Amino acid sequence: MAKEVSNKEENYSLWYNNLVIKADLAENSAVRGCMVIKPYGYAIWEKMQAQLDRMFKETGHQNAYFPLFIPKSFLSREAEHVEGFAKECAVVTHHRLMTNPDGPGVVVDPDAKLEEELVVRPTSETIIWNTYKNWIKSYRDLPILVNQWANVVRWEMRTRLFLRTAEFLWQEGHTAHSTKEEAIEETMKMVNVYAEFARKYMSMPVIIGHKTESERFAGALDTLCIEAMMQDGKALQAGTSHFLGQNFAKAFDVQFANKEGGLDYVWATSWGVSTRLMGALVMAHSDNNGLVLPPKLAPIQVVMVPIFKTEEDYKQILDRMADMKSRLVAAGVTVKIDDRDNLRSGFKFAEWELKGVPVRIAMGPRDLQNGTVEIARRDTLTKESVGQEGLENRIAALLDEIQENIYNKALKFREENTFKVDDYKTFKEKIEEGGFLMCHWDGTSETEEKIKEETKATIRCIPIDAEEEEGFCIYSGKPSKRRVIFARAY
Amino acid sequence: MAKEVSNKEENYSLWYNNLVIKADLAENSAVRGCMVIKPYGYAIWEKMQAQLDRMFKETGHQNAYFPLFIPKSFLSREAEHVEGFAKECAVVTHHRLMTNPDGPGVVVDPDAKLEEELVVRPTSETIIWNTYKNWIKSYRDLPILVNQWANVVRWEMRTRLFLRTAEFLWQEGHTAHSTKEEAIEETMKMVNVYAEFARKYMSMPVIIGHKTESERFAGALDTLCIEAMMQDGKALQAGTSHFLGQNFAKAFDVQFANKEGGLDYVWATSWGVSTRLMGALVMAHSDNNGLVLPPKLAPIQVVMVPIFKTEEDYKQILDRMADMKSRLVAAGVTVKIDDRDNLRSGFKFAEWELKGVPVRIAMGPRDLQNGTVEIARRDTLTKESVGQEGLENRIAALLDEIQENIYNKALKFREENTFKVDDYKTFKEKIEEGGFLMCHWDGTSETEEKIKEETKATIRCIPIDAEEEEGFCIYSGKPSKRRVIFARAY
Repeated sequence: MAKEVSNKEENYSLWYNNLVIKADLAENSAVRGCMVIKPYGYAIWEKMQAQLDRMFKETGHQNAYFPLFIPKSFLSREAEHVEGFAKECAVVTHHRLMTNPDGPGVVVDPDAKLEEELVVRPTSETIIWNTYKNWIKSYRDLPILVNQWANVVRWEMRTRLFLRTAEFLWQEGHTAHSTKEEAIEETMKMVNVYAEFARKYMSMPVIIGHKTESERFAGALDTLCIEAMMQDGKALQAGTSHFLGQNFAKAFDVQFANKEGGLDYVWATSWGVSTRLMGALVMAHSDNNGLVLPPKLAPIQVVMVPIFKTEEDYKQILDRMADMKSRLVAAGVTVKIDDRDNLRSGFKFAEWELKGVPVRIAMGPRDLQNGTVEIARRDTLTKESVGQEGLENRIAALLDEIQENIYNKALKFREENTFKVDDYKTFKEKIEEGGFLMCHWDGTSETEEKIKEETKATIRCIPIDAEEEEGFCIYSGKPSKRRVIFARAY
Repeated sequence: MAKEVSNKEENYSLWYNNLVIKADLAENSAVRGCMVIKPYGYAIWEKMQAQLDRMFKETGHQNAYFPLFIPKSFLSREAEHVEGFAKECAVVTHHRLMTNPDGPGVVVDPDAKLEEELVVRPTSETIIWNTYKNWIKSYRDLPILVNQWANVVRWEMRTRLFLRTAEFLWQEGHTAHSTKEEAIEETMKMVNVYAEFARKYMSMPVIIGHKTESERFAGALDTLCIEAMMQDGKALQAGTSHFLGQNFAKAFDVQFANKEGGLDYVWATSWGVSTRLMGALVMAHSDNNGLVLPPKLAPIQVVMVPIFKTEEDYKQILDRMADMKSRLVAAGVTVKIDDRDNLRSGFKFAEWELKGVPVRIAMGPRDLQNGTVEIARRDTLTKESVGQEGLENRIAALLDEIQENIYNKALKFREENTFKVDDYKTFKEKIEEGGFLMCHWDGTSETEEKIKEETKATIRCIPIDAEEEEGFCIYSGKPSKRRVIFARAY
């Protein structure tokens, strides 16, 4: 089983694709670029959703739902937005099929052409701000703090499971505020929520920073992001939070009566994370044996595998396991007993390693006699024999330890692969090895573009906690006040 | 506030539409036939989802996600299915927009025509069975018990908020089994889950029955449904569960190696409920003052309204309320304190009645002195003054009582409006008044169709618990073995 996952040191990209498929997370569908998220993969996504949703609600947000379709003309209302989103998208032109008059099957009914084409939402700013127009009259209607869980479609040419698919699942927050300050505060608050989620639940360290102007969301005045390092040293943007200024309010004429009795345009933010996080989770922690899941997102936290030769042993072991399971469940642990009697335990071990179950408990006839079990950790692949007494407390503590260890391992990896680089020659050498390069940059899009053309590296972000430091741009030699992060990225 | 909702006895349809909008449940969007589900409405839908999801998981199902798009040719694979679903639907023909060369805005790029058109899923049997083909090799891969929460699109000509919209949210279960018996059992199990949900959570009595052949799902051998009576005496189909036989397995060539080593086609079911349930919930219980929500689905179960003249009273009352709230929350009750200081309490009362909050607690200066509060029930519109001591237990019990009372009221209404009718003349008179008419029917589609043409009444279902009873068809006079339910329906 484990052999089926290829070697990540040899071909990281192939390793990733194989792993996503072998671990039953997702697969490609019959529709170009669209994936099927399989039950095991979806169970992880549900855990992500549940936790994020909790965090959104704790910060005062409510969910709502807006239409899947956007009238074509809406996209053109905000000048930059149309450039970014009105290109590769799914366009609905007709609303009826008819029996094929010339053969088998069905064909598009030419009489059912829509007056105005509809675009399947690539993001919902336009339709939402067109709706907010009717919700906002006075400052008393503000803020609006709304989130939507939805599917979106961007007609990507080169797709990869979870990382870049034509259709993906996400959440998009869209908030409306009476002041600029409040909107900026919201933008920052939500990127912090994302960072906390990545760190505490995904065990994935992230850097919070501002995108450069050329990497901003189309229509935003500022884009904050969280950037993570994958195990091949490449960067992955895991979430974004946009300060949209009054751009969409102006595009859709959304004004409110302020406290002083005047009329102002409303201030906006939007923020989102998607099923891309699933790709990040896989690439951040997994190894050549399969997935390594942080316990807080694992659909199964503990798997129990009976080891037996006789029917009687099997029954006795399962009995004891049922008892242990109920104690573990009472302690809040998700447990599965793998009681399949047609598979060898070695096969089962490999399968649960592939699926990333954090803790495996094995029990054989000798354990039965001795009152012990064998505990194996997925993160370190270490085993130890322990007593059955008080197992639930030990396991609960172990799950916390694993959650932390995975985080620390990823953090250590990032630190070991982050370098300060001060000249372009070194930069070009270093970038080939992967990692984050902390460099001075002159702040111009021209330099950024040149470096991207020559090295495929982009500025991932200007970290919000970047220290003030005098220096010179690695490319142009012009003065710079702080380092930014360059990397190749997914 | 209450005046804004029109009178349901005068114009039920207008009353419904006004109520959905005034209570902030949903509104029409800029896209024809697509609705915006507003935060308050979505909060109710979330409660429905959470409970249904729990019940699906308790019955062994897992969630997954399949593509939004279905290749046009897939729809033609199953002969009846294409008749039912390949007609009014959203057809994606292109994948790119381009800057308009002849003016402002964007236009469809003629070079980006898809080789095969994609249909936005009206239901997912075809894409899912095309996927299952790769998941199922042997009887060991069965059963597959999968559910999907998703949006679907059916290009309805006449739409009404929640009841019939072009896009709607739903869940669709799609299961695969190795035997016919197991699939039939699943079909029945899930319609029972729906009935239990309707009764226990929506406080809505339903009748479980089989659809007649002409009302079956396109591609099903049997469709089970739950039917509820609305307050105007019309029927509403609130959920369906289909036994699909081997139709989709044959259409997509899904065979499995059985235990005996032979090859069999897989047996299928599908089942779904949608945001239509929101419409049913509104129409089943609400009155001319607004929504009446069953406590188990109410986003806010208790609202507290302070009644005050002086700033000091206001503060003291809010203090006391905060204390009561924390005790209620600890007892598992969802509470909101309406501390808006710019609105009169009468206005607040009307607003929370409109929104269907089951219990209102009001507290004034005299209550503060006496250690009392005024409790008002939304379902009966009655009030009483009670002591603050032990309030949390009283309220918890009251919420249960309201949940049950709403159910009993709806059941009583249905019973009072269900009639045994044995001749067609009486049938034609009675059907004008609304209600369920229990009649003998000769079992033919011809008779069913004639009655529908002449009276607009359809056979809602053949109840699963219909008693064997000799009789004669009200239309043809031919012999019949049991009564079926006729009604006009949403």
